Amino acid sequence: MLHRICALALAVFALAPLARADEGMWLLNEPPLEYLETTYGFAPTAAWLEKVQKSAVRFPGGSGSFVSSDGLVMTNHHVAAGAIQLMSSADDNLMRDGFLARSRSDERRMPNVELFNLREIEDVSDRVQSAGEGLEPAEAAKARRATIASIEAESLEQTGLHSDVVELYGGGKHHLYRYKKYDDIRLVFCPEEAIGFFGGDADNFEFPRYNLDITFVRAYEDGVPVTPDHFLRFTTEGVDEGDLIFMAGHPGTTRRAYTADHIRFQRDVEFPMMMRQFHKREVELNVFRDRSVENARVARTDLMRVQNSRKAIGGMLAALQDPRIFAKKLADENELKNAVTSDPDLTLKYGDAWDLVSEAQINAEGFFTRYAALEWRRTALNSDLFGFAETLVRLTAELEKPSGERLPEYRDSRLAQVEDRLFTTRTIDVNLEIDRVASGLGMMTELLGGEHPVVRRALGGKSATDRARELVSGTRLFDIEYRRELLEGGVSSVQSSEDPMVRLAMALDGPSRAVRERWEREVEALRSEGYGKLTQARFEVLGDSVYPDATFSLRLSIGTIEPYTQEDTDLGAFTTIGGAFAHEEARGGEEPFALPRSWTLAKSRLNTDTPYNFVSTNDIIGGNSGSPVINRDGALVGIVFDGNRYSFLWSTIFSQERGRSVSVDARAIVEALSTVYRAKELVSEINAAG
Amino acid sequence: MLHRICALALAVFALAPLARADEGMWLLNEPPLEYLETTYGFAPTAAWLEKVQKSAVRFPGGSGSFVSSDGLVMTNHHVAAGAIQLMSSADDNLMRDGFLARSRSDERRMPNVELFNLREIEDVSDRVQSAGEGLEPAEAAKARRATIASIEAESLEQTGLHSDVVELYGGGKHHLYRYKKYDDIRLVFCPEEAIGFFGGDADNFEFPRYNLDITFVRAYEDGVPVTPDHFLRFTTEGVDEGDLIFMAGHPGTTRRAYTADHIRFQRDVEFPMMMRQFHKREVELNVFRDRSVENARVARTDLMRVQNSRKAIGGMLAALQDPRIFAKKLADENELKNAVTSDPDLTLKYGDAWDLVSEAQINAEGFFTRYAALEWRRTALNSDLFGFAETLVRLTAELEKPSGERLPEYRDSRLAQVEDRLFTTRTIDVNLEIDRVASGLGMMTELLGGEHPVVRRALGGKSATDRARELVSGTRLFDIEYRRELLEGGVSSVQSSEDPMVRLAMALDGPSRAVRERWEREVEALRSEGYGKLTQARFEVLGDSVYPDATFSLRLSIGTIEPYTQEDTDLGAFTTIGGAFAHEEARGGEEPFALPRSWTLAKSRLNTDTPYNFVSTNDIIGGNSGSPVINRDGALVGIVFDGNRYSFLWSTIFSQERGRSVSVDARAIVEALSTVYRAKELVSEINAAG
Repeated sequence: MLHRICALALAVFALAPLARADEGMWLLNEPPLEYLETTYGFAPTAAWLEKVQKSAVRFPGGSGSFVSSDGLVMTNHHVAAGAIQLMSSADDNLMRDGFLARSRSDERRMPNVELFNLREIEDVSDRVQSAGEGLEPAEAAKARRATIASIEAESLEQTGLHSDVVELYGGGKHHLYRYKKYDDIRLVFCPEEAIGFFGGDADNFEFPRYNLDITFVRAYEDGVPVTPDHFLRFTTEGVDEGDLIFMAGHPGTTRRAYTADHIRFQRDVEFPMMMRQFHKREVELNVFRDRSVENARVARTDLMRVQNSRKAIGGMLAALQDPRIFAKKLADENELKNAVTSDPDLTLKYGDAWDLVSEAQINAEGFFTRYAALEWRRTALNSDLFGFAETLVRLTAELEKPSGERLPEYRDSRLAQVEDRLFTTRTIDVNLEIDRVASGLGMMTELLGGEHPVVRRALGGKSATDRARELVSGTRLFDIEYRRELLEGGVSSVQSSEDPMVRLAMALDGPSRAVRERWEREVEALRSEGYGKLTQARFEVLGDSVYPDATFSLRLSIGTIEPYTQEDTDLGAFTTIGGAFAHEEARGGEEPFALPRSWTLAKSRLNTDTPYNFVSTNDIIGGNSGSPVINRDGALVGIVFDGNRYSFLWSTIFSQERGRSVSVDARAIVEALSTVYRAKELVSEINAAG
Repeated sequence: MLHRICALALAVFALAPLARADEGMWLLNEPPLEYLETTYGFAPTAAWLEKVQKSAVRFPGGSGSFVSSDGLVMTNHHVAAGAIQLMSSADDNLMRDGFLARSRSDERRMPNVELFNLREIEDVSDRVQSAGEGLEPAEAAKARRATIASIEAESLEQTGLHSDVVELYGGGKHHLYRYKKYDDIRLVFCPEEAIGFFGGDADNFEFPRYNLDITFVRAYEDGVPVTPDHFLRFTTEGVDEGDLIFMAGHPGTTRRAYTADHIRFQRDVEFPMMMRQFHKREVELNVFRDRSVENARVARTDLMRVQNSRKAIGGMLAALQDPRIFAKKLADENELKNAVTSDPDLTLKYGDAWDLVSEAQINAEGFFTRYAALEWRRTALNSDLFGFAETLVRLTAELEKPSGERLPEYRDSRLAQVEDRLFTTRTIDVNLEIDRVASGLGMMTELLGGEHPVVRRALGGKSATDRARELVSGTRLFDIEYRRELLEGGVSSVQSSEDPMVRLAMALDGPSRAVRERWEREVEALRSEGYGKLTQARFEVLGDSVYPDATFSLRLSIGTIEPYTQEDTDLGAFTTIGGAFAHEEARGGEEPFALPRSWTLAKSRLNTDTPYNFVSTNDIIGGNSGSPVINRDGALVGIVFDGNRYSFLWSTIFSQERGRSVSVDARAIVEALSTVYRAKELVSEINAAG
């Protein structure tokens, strides 16, 4: 045993640099106390941690926090935007015009919004682990799943709280999270989209920024506002460069365990393929848009989507191509590898973890182009009509099987979603569809080669454009009733359909499923086994001295407000409200750089020096949007709403050299509410809330 | 011998469909009389052919024709644009404002313009061929080259005419072309660029079109206007849909002999790689442009260039991906293949021609990505500063060798050009250079992978953007004197330079030369041998019943005025002058859709029904720009200036399904000269010219 202990001790020593700087999405019940003490001289009390935990709430896809004793909750405008859009109509356009409830009775119930407030965390690792002991791997997994289900059921029964067992460290730990769930959520205030998303896609992921990306809602229970045990008091004392700040929110998914070989595959194969497709599509959509005003209107969403994807993946690719960042990944990996290989027991259990992932990458390279052309990300034929056809072909076939044996996206639990998409009433533009289908057929031809049998079948002897026109003008899938008829008729009805788009989907289905199965067998399965071992190895070596990958459960991130430099320009750490007006002017005041009328009218009364947005080194990811920004005193100093372009990489590698979180300063929120929106009651509620 | 004759007879019969429809860039001394007679019932007389030949003139990079007895020559505005630009200044901007000489003394001498007028064609095939008889291939080629040089020298000596021996049918025939050369060329009239290139890049290669893409110049000799023996009389009788028309001009290069395997390589490998690079660069330049007004200005040329390339190659790629077009190529190839393989003698001589080209393609696929990343089309680092550095590294090294052993672009005959580029006084924008270099480094990394030794050296441990900033801010190559100093210092001076851009060029030079040599050895050499045989086989089987590939020498193309359909829209065959005003209005009158003031002022006086631009099936290619459009009577009915997007493919495959030439109608020329420009003397000169 001596050998083992030494190895571990060494390993911990050697691995200390792993959790560098402000990296980390920490569990609220296992915060990095030593790091905080050593680096910042800060020792959060249990009460501090409890308040932070219990003030935080989870939104669908985002985060937020209680900010008053009367159940007031703040989140981002873009987190609430889906619901606000549903509440908007041509006559009463909340999305465009904003909303302020002048009294409680004016507050409006929001559709599809449920909030979860984390009340208790219990470590149930032993119970889950012991369930599988002595069993074969498959049986053990089954036994653990059954135990988790029991724990969740018992907990709900005993406490009445929504209960989730969260798997951490790839199964190294299991924590039971008990949430209070609120489903009567009412809109209190949202600004105009023009200021909530000022600068639009052009400024998205950039800094300097000038966004009032906030929305206030109130949680009700039994028709009266909730009175939470804890909430975060707004403070306008403010923060400065260098200040320590915390964010408490729900980061969705990170894959910080990715091996260097896997990252290499992303850098040299996967991301270049995505960029090639994004660039092609962006240029094509620009050409399509420039053909007429109507085209510009219908192509807007596609164009925004592809530009955002291009920015995100382009940012990650550029970062991964930076040898310094890759070297850091390699160094981290080598440290863990050394810890494992210097211990025979660990080597036996986990030594092949990296090789398993590397083998997956080698396999993937062999048929990645084919996979990309036929099944991956559905880029090949990203059209609504083809989507309907493919869904009909697959759904009817999958429904013949028991739920557990179907492709995951057609299992019973997902059917409602699938049908929502299939029976959408969204208008489908004929010309845009032709453009999408032609583009997809062209890309498929580029990737597989003009004489590939699948391409020949897809083109049907015509050019991509002619074929696209034939498919789109010949299909009946525009008609929702026809789609319903085909689904109801099942496999036989779909397979006997003469609809050209359905026939195309049928022709592609076999080859697409084949390459998908191969991908799952030769790539995903190996990755899954490799990462299972790797995460366990990491946990065995480092324990909870490091944080687990994000799981859309509550985490605490630590950071400081720090400026950064981009293209030799020091971008500073803060913008001001005055900067928003200057930015509008510099960009000619055209949408999305046109401030709403409310701001223009209030300009002379606004304190233009008020700090507005700021950047910090906090480690966040999608899902963190709306997380409160908290100071040492546990008071709310802002709300995070974005990461800059260098933060894209954080899904796999954290680097704070230039990566930053972007937040709205609490001082600007109060200034805007008071001066622009004259929301006296709201200001008094959050200010009086201490 | 009987067998041979039968085989040939069969072959000719089987191959008749090769020269389908209006395909063909015919030699003026070997026109397809039978085709014209059979298809159009037209039998051009020797006088007709002589007039057409002797009226035609060759411009640098383009075509034109004599249109009056006083040496007046018409060509395209875009053919003369280089000279017009040189003649323009801020105070006297001929490019922007146009020019009209009110009298002979107003006509302005044009820089760098020489015209060639073809006076005589002599078949010297026998003399050239016999020079090589009985010799080994290398010796035979040398002997033929010597004979050609003698023929040219003798001809010049005897006639005083510029004499070129043109190799046709890949050496199957040699014709001696004797030209009268004119070097005192004066500008008579050019319109504003806004109408000469109305619609700009957006409309380029498209139809409907509304361009007055014309310029009139006058050839002088000994200070007086030339009086040509022949010229083309303008006619405003007009042409109609279905009318037979001819173009006589100088198509630059076609490669109609490309094998199906080579076309496959273009379709599946080469063009997709180009498109990937164009799409990436276009998106990056859009992002760069949108950053500031100044950026938009400096990026304009790069953006136009990449958009034009994307259009041209994208058009070719889409056409090659059309199975119908590829099937035509395959059928043509099989017919010639059958003719060769059914004759043992031909099989022995030419049977391996296709395999040689196919082998080149297989070799090329093996290292095409590497070639593309390092040497091909200079896409990897398309920056002015890197261009200087690379030129200095290569030029100094190459100058150490005798001219004949250098890389072709550094041979003595090209040195003046190389130095012109190296010592350009053009302003170099720092930010655009950084963007170009970062883009190039990024693409190189994508293509070779982040850990390729060449990439590591190129990046020097930094991200592409940081490295680009370092290179551009560190180099002294902005300074023309520093470039001169390095060149004068020769190899040792370049190799000891500490300039970071020079050092980068040095680091890339070895690997780039290596991959270039491999490409020349394993790809070009095999292609060259294969196409040599193929062209000879074709000539031996078909003789001059088919036309030879274009050689920038005078050719006659045959066609009819035919409308075509694009995206289900019948585009018609003609536009009208009125359409130009409607087009301007539909596009909001913004540049490049803003008509010049002269047109706006003349609008009420113009006959807006005048036919303006038209499309026809004539087989043309770059170099044909400015060719006169001639009717059966030998009168001038227009001037060709463009091909539509479907004509891009014509460099390798002619198809008139949708491919069209685009011309300015003579009626519009006369109407514009009379009404817009009030060019009475000019109108009377070309109208009176009959």
